[in-house]
Amino acid sequence: MEMKGKDLICTQDWSLEELEQTLRVAHDMKKNRYADKYTDLLKHRTFLMFFYNPSVRTRQSFEAAATELGGHAQFLEPKSMRLKTKHSAGETIEDAANVMSRYAVGLGIRILEDKIAAYGDGDRLLREYAQYATIPIVNMADDRFHPCQGLADIMGLQQRLGTNLKRKKLLMVWGQGALARSWGSIQENLLISSRFGMDVSLAYPEGYDLDPEVIEMTKANCKTSGSSFNITNDLVEGYHGADVVYSRNWMSPAAYASGEFDKAGEVKKAMQIDGWTCNEEKMKLTNDGLYIHPMPVDRGNEVTDAVASGERSIIVDVAENRLHVQKAVMGLTMSDQRIVL
Amino acid sequence: MEMKGKDLICTQDWSLEELEQTLRVAHDMKKNRYADKYTDLLKHRTFLMFFYNPSVRTRQSFEAAATELGGHAQFLEPKSMRLKTKHSAGETIEDAANVMSRYAVGLGIRILEDKIAAYGDGDRLLREYAQYATIPIVNMADDRFHPCQGLADIMGLQQRLGTNLKRKKLLMVWGQGALARSWGSIQENLLISSRFGMDVSLAYPEGYDLDPEVIEMTKANCKTSGSSFNITNDLVEGYHGADVVYSRNWMSPAAYASGEFDKAGEVKKAMQIDGWTCNEEKMKLTNDGLYIHPMPVDRGNEVTDAVASGERSIIVDVAENRLHVQKAVMGLTMSDQRIVL
Amino acid sequence: MEMKGKDLICTQDWSLEELEQTLRVAHDMKKNRYADKYTDLLKHRTFLMFFYNPSVRTRQSFEAAATELGGHAQFLEPKSMRLKTKHSAGETIEDAANVMSRYAVGLGIRILEDKIAAYGDGDRLLREYAQYATIPIVNMADDRFHPCQGLADIMGLQQRLGTNLKRKKLLMVWGQGALARSWGSIQENLLISSRFGMDVSLAYPEGYDLDPEVIEMTKANCKTSGSSFNITNDLVEGYHGADVVYSRNWMSPAAYASGEFDKAGEVKKAMQIDGWTCNEEKMKLTNDGLYIHPMPVDRGNEVTDAVASGERSIIVDVAENRLHVQKAVMGLTMSDQRIVL
Repeated sequence: MEMKGKDLICTQDWSLEELEQTLRVAHDMKKNRYADKYTDLLKHRTFLMFFYNPSVRTRQSFEAAATELGGHAQFLEPKSMRLKTKHSAGETIEDAANVMSRYAVGLGIRILEDKIAAYGDGDRLLREYAQYATIPIVNMADDRFHPCQGLADIMGLQQRLGTNLKRKKLLMVWGQGALARSWGSIQENLLISSRFGMDVSLAYPEGYDLDPEVIEMTKANCKTSGSSFNITNDLVEGYHGADVVYSRNWMSPAAYASGEFDKAGEVKKAMQIDGWTCNEEKMKLTNDGLYIHPMPVDRGNEVTDAVASGERSIIVDVAENRLHVQKAVMGLTMSDQRIVL
Repeated sequence: MEMKGKDLICTQDWSLEELEQTLRVAHDMKKNRYADKYTDLLKHRTFLMFFYNPSVRTRQSFEAAATELGGHAQFLEPKSMRLKTKHSAGETIEDAANVMSRYAVGLGIRILEDKIAAYGDGDRLLREYAQYATIPIVNMADDRFHPCQGLADIMGLQQRLGTNLKRKKLLMVWGQGALARSWGSIQENLLISSRFGMDVSLAYPEGYDLDPEVIEMTKANCKTSGSSFNITNDLVEGYHGADVVYSRNWMSPAAYASGEFDKAGEVKKAMQIDGWTCNEEKMKLTNDGLYIHPMPVDRGNEVTDAVASGERSIIVDVAENRLHVQKAVMGLTMSDQRIVL
Repeated sequence: MEMKGKDLICTQDWSLEELEQTLRVAHDMKKNRYADKYTDLLKHRTFLMFFYNPSVRTRQSFEAAATELGGHAQFLEPKSMRLKTKHSAGETIEDAANVMSRYAVGLGIRILEDKIAAYGDGDRLLREYAQYATIPIVNMADDRFHPCQGLADIMGLQQRLGTNLKRKKLLMVWGQGALARSWGSIQENLLISSRFGMDVSLAYPEGYDLDPEVIEMTKANCKTSGSSFNITNDLVEGYHGADVVYSRNWMSPAAYASGEFDKAGEVKKAMQIDGWTCNEEKMKLTNDGLYIHPMPVDRGNEVTDAVASGERSIIVDVAENRLHVQKAVMGLTMSDQRIVL
């Protein structure tokens, strides 16, 4: 399977076979973390990380990934890029992408909802870079998708439930929270879980609908893979029999539609909705369910300490998996060498 | 030819033989980008990049250069340096340079017109570092000069016109622009083009004189290399028969003399001068001329899209060359190993 | 001696044998700076540097250290960490430390007096990270201690006075200064000098007492190692017969107790105290004493140029030693490989 040169903007853009191959490589990279066959894949090569928004995990894990592949990740911020915007003269994306393609073997971009004018603009920006760049573009989280998080999620589930996730029940549930969170991780997980054949249950309070297009894609994925999809407001139904619970806060569509949303108001609204914190009592309804979350966790709101730090929580493993899946993506799409498992 | 330990503050400080050797190495480094003979030149060594001003190309290309030579470039900003200034206590340049010489094999510095009190101060600062440091100082652009850009320009011309540039006609022409640009790239190009024997034509509107000392040096270079130099206000004469057109905005000397210039006023003034945008019509007057520019390009002002993205534009190649010439400079001046072509 | 996995928050936490072994390795690493036995110790590994406060020497020397050991140091700032604070939701130290332990082989943290609520909080924060992290925590300077500086000091003294420092007289003396300095370097030096058997004389003007607990520990160290300790206000007595003079400004305990101290007031007060600048006249009282200081030096206040740049000044050597001792600490505590001298 030849994946050299492929962009990764959303897992939905890749075939199931490509996603499965990436995960096989990631599992092996974890097992053989510093093995010679992996440490030269990007030897002396540069990976550019362009952060419109700062990050925690993403920067640490991508920079470590490049290092472990023998290369180097450059940390770039837009303040030093002098790019053309509506309000200032500067370089076009065409020019920036053309030149970056000469220096580097790959370009990661992160841009979230507060740096854009309207929902979808971040994802569109990545696709514009992809159009001009001759090197792979990797989405390090945009306003719609977060493919590396989605891959890390699936890797984490496979570590506990086995490679085959078909018909395992995932509850994706809205959580209270003081952080007014993006949709990228959530929506990516819906898409990739349904690709891998999981039964997906989505539960949230009124007023917290996600992108209808993503919901339609998830439904279609479930149909293709022979699994089920439902949306519920009934938490008991949602938790009942779940193999996996993904409890996380996200913003309302009204707020999320514009880059100039009222964050304080959104947090206030979210904190007034009772009963949506994932706790041990609710977890008892599950099929000895795993707890998953992309971190950072808003403990006490999205989930209790007991669940987040409990035996069935895989949050730290999933965070670690970011490293492994990103190494796999970079190795497969950016290296001149062929990976042999 | 022994170049170990040499500073590079302006190409004028180097002999023509040293510049030619650097370019030979740069061409070979492009051809054999990741060859073993080059990837160990700075193995495990540190190159410090000290940015008084942020940058696009410069940071990306220097950091990639260090990586490709097996070393690592550290990104330093003055806010974290606690240096002594007129207004605050802190470390002297003597102390900073002495200690950096113990940690690193080379030090790049970038300081432009808005970070200094008066024209020339930036260049003087670099020379003060060079006085105290026992490692090579590389100019990553100052208010007067930009030697790595100059070398990349010549490399780009050699790629299209052959190694021998003698008597090829260069038109250096002022362009409209919304960015109020520095003189460094322009002045460096005048100096190095004339060293390599090009006929230099300089064209600009009234009120946009450059540094008289640099103009005198350019004239002297032309005399030494048997080429011609002229300044003209007649654009038709300038474009006529040119082998290369370098069209770029630069600030007026009145504004550029002080670090506290009125940028908005300068842009406004520049935008009111008509007819100085490089376009296809003007390019038809040339000898099938190449278009060159150090990027970022202010498209629509300095040059039209048709010219900047046309067949005869070498701007992206020149941007790529930054990487190669900087690798050559670093390899020749900072490595313990001898480069054999 | 097995040191893998050890935190280094204060030299007092390590046995004398461990400190001596670290210094033996550091001396050898200086002698064989890029030798193969050292350049693979952290090959392809990541060291995280988390700077609550910016730094000069610390960042340069730690990043160079990781590079010279074959690894890579990531530069992290708290603005990008989204950590939980009193005023904002965010990630707990438990979660951050757990995940960083998955990506990296070591974590350095720097936090000074202006980023905390009360004296001791910085040091406590490091110990909280150490509690949760499964990788070594290295103190890159906190409000109480600066172990790598202390080790670099001792290495510098050994280079001039020999390995055995027993009964050599150290004068630690307060200096005028415009920078209102932290206590970390000073207190660490008192602790490690007394561990290595030096006679310690501490001299300062009224109102500049240091942490009483550190003074008690220093006294106890002197007792254990059979050396003497005294505090004096008499400068002639202090300088008389000193083998080493460490002259540096530090803040008064009133100011230093809180993170919201009046820096300008503190500087003003310090500048009004006359006679505490280290100069050639005072140095004539010593036993041909060495001058030591952790840099950056406030020349003219803490010490005259003649002394700081004189033959007996070891300040640049000590700054260089930061690199070597940090490489030794990282190699000994973070590498899978065993160091053989």
